[in-house]
Amino acid sequence: MEKTDTEVKAEEEEGAPALSVERVFDGVRVPAWREQVTVRALVVSLGLSVMLSVIVMKLNLTTGIVPSLNVASGLLGFFFVKVWTKALERAGVLRVPFTRQENTVIQTCVVAAYGLAGSGGYGSYLLGMSSTIADQATEANNPQNIKDPKLGWMIAFMFVVSFVGLFSLVPLRKIMIIDYKLIYPSGTATAFLINGFHTPQGENLAKKQVRTLGKFFSFSFLWGFFQWFYKSGDDCGFEAFPTFGLKAYENRFNFDFSAMYVGVGMICPHIVNISVLIGAILSWGIMWPLINNQKGNWFSADLSPNSLHGLQGYRIFIAVSMILGDGLYNFLKVLTKTVQVFVSDSQKIRLSTLPVSDEVHMAKQPIVSYDDGRRAEVFLKDQIPKWVAIVGYSMVSLVSIITLPHIFPPLKWYFILVAYALAPVLAFCNAYGCGLTDWNMASTYGKLAIFIFGAWAGGHHGGVLAGLAACGVMLSIVSTASDLMQDFKTGYLTLSSPRSMFVSQVIGTAMGCVVAPCVFWLFYKAFDDIGIPSSQYPAPFALIYRNMAILGVDGVSSLPKHCLTLCYIFFALAIIINLARDLSPKKVGQCIPIPMAMAIPFYIGTAFAIDMFIGTVILFVWQKMDREKAAAFGPAVASGLICGDGIWSLPQAVLALAQVKPPICMKFLSRKMNDRVDAFINPAS
Amino acid sequence: MEKTDTEVKAEEEEGAPALSVERVFDGVRVPAWREQVTVRALVVSLGLSVMLSVIVMKLNLTTGIVPSLNVASGLLGFFFVKVWTKALERAGVLRVPFTRQENTVIQTCVVAAYGLAGSGGYGSYLLGMSSTIADQATEANNPQNIKDPKLGWMIAFMFVVSFVGLFSLVPLRKIMIIDYKLIYPSGTATAFLINGFHTPQGENLAKKQVRTLGKFFSFSFLWGFFQWFYKSGDDCGFEAFPTFGLKAYENRFNFDFSAMYVGVGMICPHIVNISVLIGAILSWGIMWPLINNQKGNWFSADLSPNSLHGLQGYRIFIAVSMILGDGLYNFLKVLTKTVQVFVSDSQKIRLSTLPVSDEVHMAKQPIVSYDDGRRAEVFLKDQIPKWVAIVGYSMVSLVSIITLPHIFPPLKWYFILVAYALAPVLAFCNAYGCGLTDWNMASTYGKLAIFIFGAWAGGHHGGVLAGLAACGVMLSIVSTASDLMQDFKTGYLTLSSPRSMFVSQVIGTAMGCVVAPCVFWLFYKAFDDIGIPSSQYPAPFALIYRNMAILGVDGVSSLPKHCLTLCYIFFALAIIINLARDLSPKKVGQCIPIPMAMAIPFYIGTAFAIDMFIGTVILFVWQKMDREKAAAFGPAVASGLICGDGIWSLPQAVLALAQVKPPICMKFLSRKMNDRVDAFINPAS
Repeated sequence: MEKTDTEVKAEEEEGAPALSVERVFDGVRVPAWREQVTVRALVVSLGLSVMLSVIVMKLNLTTGIVPSLNVASGLLGFFFVKVWTKALERAGVLRVPFTRQENTVIQTCVVAAYGLAGSGGYGSYLLGMSSTIADQATEANNPQNIKDPKLGWMIAFMFVVSFVGLFSLVPLRKIMIIDYKLIYPSGTATAFLINGFHTPQGENLAKKQVRTLGKFFSFSFLWGFFQWFYKSGDDCGFEAFPTFGLKAYENRFNFDFSAMYVGVGMICPHIVNISVLIGAILSWGIMWPLINNQKGNWFSADLSPNSLHGLQGYRIFIAVSMILGDGLYNFLKVLTKTVQVFVSDSQKIRLSTLPVSDEVHMAKQPIVSYDDGRRAEVFLKDQIPKWVAIVGYSMVSLVSIITLPHIFPPLKWYFILVAYALAPVLAFCNAYGCGLTDWNMASTYGKLAIFIFGAWAGGHHGGVLAGLAACGVMLSIVSTASDLMQDFKTGYLTLSSPRSMFVSQVIGTAMGCVVAPCVFWLFYKAFDDIGIPSSQYPAPFALIYRNMAILGVDGVSSLPKHCLTLCYIFFALAIIINLARDLSPKKVGQCIPIPMAMAIPFYIGTAFAIDMFIGTVILFVWQKMDREKAAAFGPAVASGLICGDGIWSLPQAVLALAQVKPPICMKFLSRKMNDRVDAFINPAS
Repeated sequence: MEKTDTEVKAEEEEGAPALSVERVFDGVRVPAWREQVTVRALVVSLGLSVMLSVIVMKLNLTTGIVPSLNVASGLLGFFFVKVWTKALERAGVLRVPFTRQENTVIQTCVVAAYGLAGSGGYGSYLLGMSSTIADQATEANNPQNIKDPKLGWMIAFMFVVSFVGLFSLVPLRKIMIIDYKLIYPSGTATAFLINGFHTPQGENLAKKQVRTLGKFFSFSFLWGFFQWFYKSGDDCGFEAFPTFGLKAYENRFNFDFSAMYVGVGMICPHIVNISVLIGAILSWGIMWPLINNQKGNWFSADLSPNSLHGLQGYRIFIAVSMILGDGLYNFLKVLTKTVQVFVSDSQKIRLSTLPVSDEVHMAKQPIVSYDDGRRAEVFLKDQIPKWVAIVGYSMVSLVSIITLPHIFPPLKWYFILVAYALAPVLAFCNAYGCGLTDWNMASTYGKLAIFIFGAWAGGHHGGVLAGLAACGVMLSIVSTASDLMQDFKTGYLTLSSPRSMFVSQVIGTAMGCVVAPCVFWLFYKAFDDIGIPSSQYPAPFALIYRNMAILGVDGVSSLPKHCLTLCYIFFALAIIINLARDLSPKKVGQCIPIPMAMAIPFYIGTAFAIDMFIGTVILFVWQKMDREKAAAFGPAVASGLICGDGIWSLPQAVLALAQVKPPICMKFLSRKMNDRVDAFINPAS
């Protein structure tokens, strides 16, 4: 187990000089940050944002299930600019060559822009405010709790809430990427892809790595494509494969053949994967079955399995408590350390402008690999001054506090103040959890906000609308924090300037604030059946969110029995485990599971935990067999697996838009049920 | 396509001196043939034969589906003798070390013995003669056509028919293994396994090959095990995976994830795999659908899909015609060549006793690899004199001709004479086809015999009993020919003496002649419901065979329309294609598909053809990528895949005996059907 810690792992991946990625790029000049944000990059970004926004919006309004298209935006960005530069090159008028930094800038800009089509809640909380949805709910169908979509206020709302997340990111950036050395599997994989595209000719190992990446990329893409054919309905296809038997599958224990999460498991440190698996077993193997036995006692037996009053309530709130416990602990730890350093050693004030060598020592890693050194150097060179972050955050918050109550009267100004005070902690939690396991839990935080602020406002004071609006505020910040932190990781690994990244994020966000509401408005005006069940655009999550808000106004009393007690216990447990990790000797500490990673499967289910565990086992065996080769090609294999599946999301989304459904259902039945079904299908025989 | 010929392929596998298997064994003495047939080998063989016979017999009498346990017997033989010798070694009394030749002898003996439990027809033709089965059929339920099982006549029948096949093998042996260089995939794989077990310590490449073999062996075994869980019924599991869609699956086009046949495809030359695929497309893709369109016109529309009067009749008889055409062509070719050589050059009379160098030139291969040379040398050293074969065959035939009519009165002596005149050709066909594609088509030849001799005898002269008895005669010879030829290939590749192999086959056959009827008798006396439908031992094939015999007595008139015409066409086609192969320039000729390989999927279905094609593609790509590595490790991978699946047959059979059924059905439904089934399963939602 001596190889489980984040640092050791990171060193393995990027460490040995022979395997250095950045040495390969040594001959390539890193362009200044202004050169990274080119006009062509922004033009391509705008085009891609519109395209992806349309896709995301339509999925929002139809099934409500939207895959992550972050990897796809990196690849498409590369493709379009490459075509562009090739054309110019042929015409002999190319002035600026296409660099990996520019590629990263496009990816960042596109993610920031199309991300708002998702986090804007057009299929969930925002549409949930409308009268169409209110008519379908039994309660709170009154003007106080209704706000019908209009282009004007939607754009205003977007502008007001979206930039807050951006500024809260700035101080987090260094903590997450350099100090905590978090993995951000998708971000790392995308960086690997982008580095691969731009590798200078003639480098032997790099070429081999790119070929490996390409091979596993193709495999993962084709595998995703193949899987698609067999998933014509729920409980169909490889996702429903009862790898450990039907009984285990009922408790959501199965390996679902997701190439993506096997890749994530190969990139994440072993301890993260093991933590996730322990969490999965603890929750789905022990706790949920036990709590389910109390059905009819702790909670009403005739609730739907997804009701927050029932088992689902325990799942979400216990998971959030544990995540918050871990997040708060780490947030306070970072805060105290920063203050300590700030106070005790005045030299360290120059921290953000110091040369790299000092910085790196801060990261608790005495031996620094060439890659890490080079990357930290670039990452810390073009700093965004702290005052920009603080002033920006305060300014935007102030504008929000003033504006939002005008848009949503039940959302009082002090609600927003409290939300913005809490937000950085939650953003930290989400960015941290995402860095460990690749899961963006933003919607969970949004649901938390519905509960807190809905209950605070109360049913008679427009609590439903207040809850939904607060959900929007929180979700934007938290979602931005994890999505863009992934991009910062990509930027870090591609030597992109944080300043160019920040600028491109600001531009992307501004694009998104206009594009997303406009695209929604187009749909809303063009089709008059949006949000109506059994129509073409049922937007199922809109009603779900509104119903949650209706529940939420009842506050803590609406939670199932003992749920709150369990939440306290797991909150405390998260802090205790973290203390144990930090206070015990390093060798012991690094074998103690990470509460954040443990908590994520509580809510998500276990399949991804098993995928990741298989990934980690593959890597472990590979390391035992051939440590050098595993270090050189492991990340390439993992990135290929992640990116291939990621890109497949795009054609999959297009197929869903075109109403092309898979033709076959691969179904799993018990022998007994199969006999019954056979008799049903062929009554004659 | 310059690498498609058998010779070239064989050279690749065993050719380059660096990759020589036999050089690895150079330090190991090849024991004299008498030392290869040890007492312990025979004791172990007897034990294994009894065990495997019980398994096969029970499967015969329950489902009627019996997997090939040949590989398993090789492995079990190794295991038991290894335990034995280890024990003696510890006790310090081991005199003769365990050699790979001894291992091969055990495998041969066990295959010869337990094979009779299968080819003896205890679940098919022999039981089909009984009154229990006759009572279930509508016609021919008269004493003339009934012969109830008795231990005495069964043992006599076994002894009389089983040795004929053995003697017909002797002259075929050299033609198949040395001249035609047929692959016999299972035999080659078993040899690889046995060589691997006995590889002297310290050989680097050999060790690596054995490790590769072990890895793929484990994979294939575990994969077989995994697949088992999902096959709780017909049309369930990976075998029913509609890899190319449901429509293609209905026409039996799918990849069924059989590791075994992918391995077979990797061992067989590319042209064989391509021939099989062409045959599959020609038959299942074009001909059968076209003929099926004539339903109601060419044959009655209300026939069961497996009736010989309908589509199944075309499949079997056209396949057999093409196989016979090819077989006859090659048989005559070999015959004329042998006679030519015999006549034109009297020096060549010493053929069988000549030193090897001359012999090998006979094999049309001017450049001989070390392995080939060494193996041919051993294979041709301990000859079995031709007169033994001729005298043996004549003697046993004579005994048969005299004895059999006493056992089965309707089986006239001249039927048997004709059968024994035809048998060598059919044995040649089956051994040749099996050498190319690993399929043993013995039961098909048995069905052919039912038709020919049943019709000849006629319904009023006990034609049903005559047909069934003739089926037994034919099936024994033909089945022995292919099973034991596989073993000869193993023997060739493990430097086992053909003489020791022959002796062990004789002993094994003698064992089987006693063991198989006794085991059957045990079952028959212990359970009085054998052959009764819906009992524990329904023996479904017994009634099927009897019904075929009942149909058969009607002769050619019972065949569906145009079937005979098509048979003539394909018979001629087989000869024409063979002429084209032989008369065109070598480069063109070796690209023309082999009719024998084309014909096998006509009857069997296409899944195995697709498996084999995938195997060949894998090998082809591997060869393109790294020719040397593919040559060194390809056979190891292929053997691992074949043997792993082969050994899995044993626990699978044990599970079937213990009535342990798979728990899950992996089912494939169209989207529409799935919606209906979902509504059926959950009527509430």
